[in-house]
Amino acid sequence: MSSLNNTLKIAVLPGDGIGREVMPACLELIDAAVGQAGAPPLVFETHQAGAQHYAETGEALPAAALEACRTSDAILFGAMGWPDIRFPDGTEIIPQLDLRMEFGLFAGVRPIRWFPGLPKVLSDPRAEGIDFVLVREQTEGLFYARGRGEVLNDQEAYDTMQITRAGTERVSEFAFQLAAQRKRRGKPGTVTCVDKANVFSSMAFFRKVFDEVAAKHPELQKDYAYVDALALNMVKKPWTLDVLVTENMFGDILSDLAAGLIGGMGMAPSADIGDTHGLFQPAHGTAPDIAGKGVANPSAMFLSGAMMLDWLAVKHGEQRLADAARLIEAAVERTLSTKTAVPMEYGGSANCAEMTRSVIGALGAVR
Amino acid sequence: MSSLNNTLKIAVLPGDGIGREVMPACLELIDAAVGQAGAPPLVFETHQAGAQHYAETGEALPAAALEACRTSDAILFGAMGWPDIRFPDGTEIIPQLDLRMEFGLFAGVRPIRWFPGLPKVLSDPRAEGIDFVLVREQTEGLFYARGRGEVLNDQEAYDTMQITRAGTERVSEFAFQLAAQRKRRGKPGTVTCVDKANVFSSMAFFRKVFDEVAAKHPELQKDYAYVDALALNMVKKPWTLDVLVTENMFGDILSDLAAGLIGGMGMAPSADIGDTHGLFQPAHGTAPDIAGKGVANPSAMFLSGAMMLDWLAVKHGEQRLADAARLIEAAVERTLSTKTAVPMEYGGSANCAEMTRSVIGALGAVR
Ligand SMILES: CC(C)[C@H](C(=O)O)[C@@H](O)C(=O)O
Ligand SMILES: CC(C)[C@H](C(=O)O)[C@@H](O)C(=O)O
Repeated sequence: MSSLNNTLKIAVLPGDGIGREVMPACLELIDAAVGQAGAPPLVFETHQAGAQHYAETGEALPAAALEACRTSDAILFGAMGWPDIRFPDGTEIIPQLDLRMEFGLFAGVRPIRWFPGLPKVLSDPRAEGIDFVLVREQTEGLFYARGRGEVLNDQEAYDTMQITRAGTERVSEFAFQLAAQRKRRGKPGTVTCVDKANVFSSMAFFRKVFDEVAAKHPELQKDYAYVDALALNMVKKPWTLDVLVTENMFGDILSDLAAGLIGGMGMAPSADIGDTHGLFQPAHGTAPDIAGKGVANPSAMFLSGAMMLDWLAVKHGEQRLADAARLIEAAVERTLSTKTAVPMEYGGSANCAEMTRSVIGALGAVR
Repeated sequence: MSSLNNTLKIAVLPGDGIGREVMPACLELIDAAVGQAGAPPLVFETHQAGAQHYAETGEALPAAALEACRTSDAILFGAMGWPDIRFPDGTEIIPQLDLRMEFGLFAGVRPIRWFPGLPKVLSDPRAEGIDFVLVREQTEGLFYARGRGEVLNDQEAYDTMQITRAGTERVSEFAFQLAAQRKRRGKPGTVTCVDKANVFSSMAFFRKVFDEVAAKHPELQKDYAYVDALALNMVKKPWTLDVLVTENMFGDILSDLAAGLIGGMGMAPSADIGDTHGLFQPAHGTAPDIAGKGVANPSAMFLSGAMMLDWLAVKHGEQRLADAARLIEAAVERTLSTKTAVPMEYGGSANCAEMTRSVIGALGAVR
């Protein structure tokens, strides 16, 4: 069945803060799930990187870590950044942005799905049907300005947003392919282009290129929304959303908002996908307020691990890795819905180790 | 008591779509409330402007309308824009943006407060305590790019965001003064600077200038949030927010999101304030889907009228105008909380005329 010739190698970057706590838990879970699915084990190569590593060594993203990312089959990422540790010019240490550029990880994939055991943030019962994916363009947009901005005479500052045809084509195509795969509720998928085409010419250009890509997918639905109206609809009727594609900065804001609808960052996995590389990380940050206490909820890290297994499964034609991903998702859902362990952020008392033990324990029950 | 020497003149721009329906209702209510408060009547001068006017006459914002806005004591605005009516170059007809620039209406004030009768969108009971104000900078930021964007060779497009020291100072100062006035829950106010200072140098500049202004208000609290984290917190714990100040584009997105927390645009008033002029408009648009049916909820227009009366009261030292504003707010709240009339968007059957009659009827009961 397997078309795997080689063992798959994973570059592991735990990073800072709670990234260092949830990552070992995730590796243990992946090992167990992969084993249970009968897939060949993955090989993990862990590298230190991030703000704390910078404070210790003067390097935020050492060459060896970058090289491991380049040559591995996937990158598993915890979280990076720390309030008080900055580069000499005062800017923050956020190697995740560098990795997006370095490997052209153009599609930030942020699935948002409610399942039993998650808090009911919205009072409308239809919110149980929340099941959409936000695709954030990640190599241009306003983030093109990073490192290029100008401050003139302490009087005015400028940052420029870039939208390219190539960048918009590839991320739109990605979104349509995702919509085709999802076959959500048995219906053909809908891709919504989220922009501000009524005001900005770059955004009108984004919509125009999106339209050209949409024309190649007549079997799928397309739709448009202004970003402000979409933010409102995320609160009013998120159960109507399917696949959203948007500019980098808009995607940053909307994906945090979206995570809020299912209880916050504790449950929000993400994938940063390029033509050759894929990076998988929980959407939460390093959480300095709770770091070091062992109380972080590792669920988003676990679900990011499952996204990695799914991506590897497709790339290498290895169904058993997809089976392992399903096992992880089912075990997380079972743990939360049966309340075997309730994370602190949802009013429970389970710390990271207890959540991990529960989820690994649930693997057997869900196979 | 009154320091009014002249009758106050209001430039009235109903605009397009439901703007034309909610505006006459609002003028009737203002007349009644001002009369009941014993204040001298306002004089309304109505001008046509907007997309439908453009289609009929070739002018979106006629010189006479603009002149009336310039010479009046306040501008009352319905809504403008229409999907199929555009300028020859394909751009939308949105004179509200032109007015912001023309009169330097730098502070977009968007109060968000829950009161009985509004839908409980969030399931957490603390959401009944939602009571914050978003101050959106409205003369620069990313909107500086409007009309300046470039599309090169159908291959790449650029839009540039501008942050100036003067623009940031005045909007920050406005936010601190607002926080001082609010004395919310008896505590000194907190102003939160919402930015993306970790990535963009223009945003780091925004935060720096905000800080300088904050230093002049040691009696008030200051705080910072990245825009993505703030979007999450608006969903997770909006009852903790007080006064927010942010860049133009971020403010556009966050104010729609915020309106969603109290049931949508039907209840969201807004004020666009400059050094000399003030424009007051409901945050909803022209609503082409329901326009012409007489079913629009006029509440946001009514509350925008109340904001205008409050602003005029301070400007002209005329307490009775503030009394009229309180009467309008109380009458809207009473109508909704007693369910004398329930707007269609909240599952009721009251159309615009019925809502208006109920609110005007409630004026007597709340005096
Ligand atoms: C850490 C930060 C720079 C980053 C971003 O803005 O992209 C984060 O918010 C994210 O969403 O991955
Ligand atoms: C109509 C539109 C251009 C406008 C804006 O983006 O400012 C609106 O959304 C608003 O919030 O007033």
